[in-house]
Amino acid sequence: MRLLLIHSDFIEYEAQKKTAMAEEDIIQKDSLDEAIAAFCAVESVDEEDLMDVVIQAADEILKTAEKVGSARVMIYPYAHLSNDLASPKQAVMALRALEEKLSGSIEVKRAPFGWYKSFNLSCKGHPLSELSRTLVPGGGEDTPAKKEVTREWFVL
Amino acid sequence: MRLLLIHSDFIEYEAQKKTAMAEEDIIQKDSLDEAIAAFCAVESVDEEDLMDVVIQAADEILKTAEKVGSARVMIYPYAHLSNDLASPKQAVMALRALEEKLSGSIEVKRAPFGWYKSFNLSCKGHPLSELSRTLVPGGGEDTPAKKEVTREWFVL
Ligand SMILES: [Mg+2]
Repeated sequence: MRLLLIHSDFIEYEAQKKTAMAEEDIIQKDSLDEAIAAFCAVESVDEEDLMDVVIQAADEILKTAEKVGSARVMIYPYAHLSNDLASPKQAVMALRALEEKLSGSIEVKRAPFGWYKSFNLSCKGHPLSELSRTLVPGGGEDTPAKKEVTREWFVL
Repeated sequence: MRLLLIHSDFIEYEAQKKTAMAEEDIIQKDSLDEAIAAFCAVESVDEEDLMDVVIQAADEILKTAEKVGSARVMIYPYAHLSNDLASPKQAVMALRALEEKLSGSIEVKRAPFGWYKSFNLSCKGHPLSELSRTLVPGGGEDTPAKKEVTREWFVL
């Protein structure tokens, strides 16, 4: 999963138009102030162990929320963060699981998957206000400096 | 180069704090209405032929601008789009070259490289308002479905 976390004054969206893979029963329009906008791309490799990646993502979001002193997150599906996406079905499963996982600890909203959406985002711009991660099943982060999946920092 | 183009009602930024790789002599704060926000990550592979990738990026931006009926672009350095970045020096060279290349055809502004910045972005949300590309030297797009660099769509 590619994750881009932006500590924001506000994030708001409005679903405008369905794509072929649009979720049903959505919240058409919503917003959060003083929140983390969590842009997520679920990747094909995540399908090997979707729940593992979801737990890592939740952990990353909660750590960041604590660091920046926010207690709100807007999960925002963002396919443009990856060239190698999971199937839409798996992606929606992961995003819903992430929402549920976080909802015990923090206020969570989730923008709908598979819709063209307008959005308005105000990034705070302090040194911790933008962070990105590539999470892979097995608990490691996949970066060029760290091709081998390392497990030490995340033990189930 | 990873490129994320967002057709926006407005994009505004304000440089807040230097990083170790901050550009000097910057425009501290600026904005554009009815513009394409062009988030760019210059990648290490781009160093093989920086100008080739710049020309491809300019071409992509101009095509998109024409499609959505915009005549303004804000070039916005965005390292979070890639896990494998070019050196800061090469990245700044590429971004400045992109600015110069575009400036004959369209109104261009460029947010400074290497600064923590606050920003405010309003994505329009119509079907063409968000587009991403991975450009590599040699003229092709590097996607999983297209591992071999193809040249047909961009001939110098
Ligand atoms: Mg509008």
